[in-house]
Amino acid sequence: MAISSSILFCYLLFSLISNVASSFMYSDDRRDVLFPQILKEEAVTRLDELGKVSDANGYLQRTFMSPASVRAGNLIRQWMEDAGLRTWVDHMGNVHGRVEGLNASAQALLIGSHLDTVVDAGIFDGSLGIITAISALKVLKSTGKLGKLKRPVEVIAFSDEEGVRFQSTFLGSAALAGVLPVSALRVSDKSGVTVLDALRENSIDIAEESLLQLKYDPASVWGYIEVHIEQGPVLEWVGFPLGVVQGIAGQTRLKVTVRGSQGHAGTVPMSMRQDPMTAAAELIVLLERLCKHPKDFLSYDGRSNGSTLESLSSSLVCTVGEISSWPSASNVIPGEVTFTVDLRAIDDAGRETVLYELSNQLYQICEKRSVSCIVERKHDANAVMCDADLSSQLKSASYAALKRMTGETQHEIPVIMSGAGHDAMAMSHLTKVGMLFVRCRGGISHSPAEHVLDDDVWAAGLAVLAFLETHV
Amino acid sequence: MAISSSILFCYLLFSLISNVASSFMYSDDRRDVLFPQILKEEAVTRLDELGKVSDANGYLQRTFMSPASVRAGNLIRQWMEDAGLRTWVDHMGNVHGRVEGLNASAQALLIGSHLDTVVDAGIFDGSLGIITAISALKVLKSTGKLGKLKRPVEVIAFSDEEGVRFQSTFLGSAALAGVLPVSALRVSDKSGVTVLDALRENSIDIAEESLLQLKYDPASVWGYIEVHIEQGPVLEWVGFPLGVVQGIAGQTRLKVTVRGSQGHAGTVPMSMRQDPMTAAAELIVLLERLCKHPKDFLSYDGRSNGSTLESLSSSLVCTVGEISSWPSASNVIPGEVTFTVDLRAIDDAGRETVLYELSNQLYQICEKRSVSCIVERKHDANAVMCDADLSSQLKSASYAALKRMTGETQHEIPVIMSGAGHDAMAMSHLTKVGMLFVRCRGGISHSPAEHVLDDDVWAAGLAVLAFLETHV
Repeated sequence: MAISSSILFCYLLFSLISNVASSFMYSDDRRDVLFPQILKEEAVTRLDELGKVSDANGYLQRTFMSPASVRAGNLIRQWMEDAGLRTWVDHMGNVHGRVEGLNASAQALLIGSHLDTVVDAGIFDGSLGIITAISALKVLKSTGKLGKLKRPVEVIAFSDEEGVRFQSTFLGSAALAGVLPVSALRVSDKSGVTVLDALRENSIDIAEESLLQLKYDPASVWGYIEVHIEQGPVLEWVGFPLGVVQGIAGQTRLKVTVRGSQGHAGTVPMSMRQDPMTAAAELIVLLERLCKHPKDFLSYDGRSNGSTLESLSSSLVCTVGEISSWPSASNVIPGEVTFTVDLRAIDDAGRETVLYELSNQLYQICEKRSVSCIVERKHDANAVMCDADLSSQLKSASYAALKRMTGETQHEIPVIMSGAGHDAMAMSHLTKVGMLFVRCRGGISHSPAEHVLDDDVWAAGLAVLAFLETHV
Repeated sequence: MAISSSILFCYLLFSLISNVASSFMYSDDRRDVLFPQILKEEAVTRLDELGKVSDANGYLQRTFMSPASVRAGNLIRQWMEDAGLRTWVDHMGNVHGRVEGLNASAQALLIGSHLDTVVDAGIFDGSLGIITAISALKVLKSTGKLGKLKRPVEVIAFSDEEGVRFQSTFLGSAALAGVLPVSALRVSDKSGVTVLDALRENSIDIAEESLLQLKYDPASVWGYIEVHIEQGPVLEWVGFPLGVVQGIAGQTRLKVTVRGSQGHAGTVPMSMRQDPMTAAAELIVLLERLCKHPKDFLSYDGRSNGSTLESLSSSLVCTVGEISSWPSASNVIPGEVTFTVDLRAIDDAGRETVLYELSNQLYQICEKRSVSCIVERKHDANAVMCDADLSSQLKSASYAALKRMTGETQHEIPVIMSGAGHDAMAMSHLTKVGMLFVRCRGGISHSPAEHVLDDDVWAAGLAVLAFLETHV
């Protein structure tokens, strides 16, 4: 794969930062603070084992309340119990493991991630956060510290984050955070089975009225942390196994429909065409320019101030992932072209500014080309900022973990933005949240090629352990 | 539908030309040279009737040797016989109707078009040429002139021009012209039935060895003419019911595959992307600019001279009709985008020059974006020029027909380029060819909305009649 100039620049910039070796030696006297058997070997073995629990033959797929999801939940419960946790499954299929520590009525620390997967998934997305939490607690059990925790610690394996089966997101975590609308229970999958049906098939009887009972009392919760693979290339490029998440980008999803005049590819002169395909292409090029260089398009006026522009320049990402034409024949000028736009930024006002500018310029292009353009706003989610104190503690824990592993003083842990949504988004409605990202190979996720180095799994487990130790 | 500035310009330009009224009165003394019962009423009724002969329920579809095609052929034979022609079906399913005239051994005038259709077709594409020819000959019969033709006249309803069933084109006409490869007989449709099977199912037993026997002896043929709906908007814009075809554009069909780096829409910074979607969009915008303004891209060098550039400016058309992305999810930066390019021009050297320039610029863009681009040349057909003498005679015949209808002296009959392929392309390998285009509403074809005014059907029939009268 060729390396573009911008990537090369990035590479040169960050190669100045000393890399954390991805594989290293440790002396025997550090073995007792590194717990490789639990945090590395066993954690990696469990990731592999959980990665084999699939509803599909030949690839990984676990959707909300599917047979494989139930089997995965049972496996996770075993591992939770093995770590000394009390376990249960709630009415949305979330799997819980809790230790009360010294004070069962103190505010609880929640640590979670999701047990469902996309179709043809990798084995780390979701599972990594669950397994590193369980492993870290198992270390505390092995060192006799589990009972000395100052507050209850609860690991939660959420039942639905990817939303594959019901086109939902966060069925599990949103229910616990009290932000899942009752209507979500009535949504059907492709075969007409509703969320309620899927739960009942698994002997979970939840009434619509009792959905709100799932909500945790905010006063009973201290905070939520989540470990997750980065699903992007930044940590790999900067050469760090761990990064602290500043916040989760807000997102807007658009569907753009361009309608023109359908015609024979050979008979309509270029000057007489109202071609939605070339119009769509011009719109996509515009979108890319706008999102790559927002400063060239937006000015310091009432709609956008300096900090917004700075934030946009570093965090704005725009993607056209789907496109289709009608009637889709090589010898027909299309009558209609539709495409999706996924636009994310850490700054909500900035995202709105970009959408406003995009919309303005889009309609100008459509008018110039005499095609009709319809922009539908299909989905909006505001950005979620991680809690500054929690992030600072996760940074210290990561720093301690890496120092423990390498014996060397580490450079500053990278602070990065999450462009992907996570259960932490839903949980932010309940409590303060913090997230730790783990480097993945090539930034690849949602693919069987998804990979995290064994040592990076270990680093993540050590970081969670270091974090938990501050609560002992 | 909004009118773009270029179309408006076109409209203003041509509105200076006096329109041929689409509906008019005629005095009784012209009735005997206008034959409205045969050339208008009956022809329109037959177009409607033939348009109902379909393999599909609710829309029109007739493919090579399908049951509806066979029924359509039988109907056409009846109408041919009603016009005094001797009929037969040949070994490629073409339906023939012939009158020998005064000299059966003189070179024959062939008049044809196709009886097959696209899926969800209009009723004029193909059928118009067959029915106007039969109607004009029926007029000659009614006036006692059929036997006085100086040469044999043969109407041929070709069995396959659209190529829907076998992804072929011109199975019928190419066989008569002797340019159909034997391998075409072994091509299968979607259900595994070969061309040979399809013929045998209809009791037509053709051996591969005997394919060449279908070829007409060029010495026995005087020329070929074809009446066809324009399938484009030019005649409507200039306000003429008929136009003479200068030539049929050459065509190149490309498949462009752009491969980049697949990734999560939220996690890969804009500067680190190798996005095949935005690359494809830039390529499509480039293609449109190049084809709209070839003079801006091509210079007067060894590859392109002045006349080539002039010809390109007036005839070059480029279309992207199909596009798709992989994996096609709104939240995934695609790993691959493919699209088709259909490029046509009346000047073959010019087409090659454009392809050369396109290819150059395309690879530059792909390199700049660090994506890999593969351009496959899927199909090439050189342009076919219509015979100047035949075109001149068709022009005179059209002029005479319109003058007969309106009683007014007509302006110059438009001479236009055909961007669509026609049986005349195949027949040009056998003999000189000429074509007459008939105005269609909105330039729409390959659609049930395809429409030709009754009076334009009549004008076309009168033009064929006037043409035939020069052979009496």
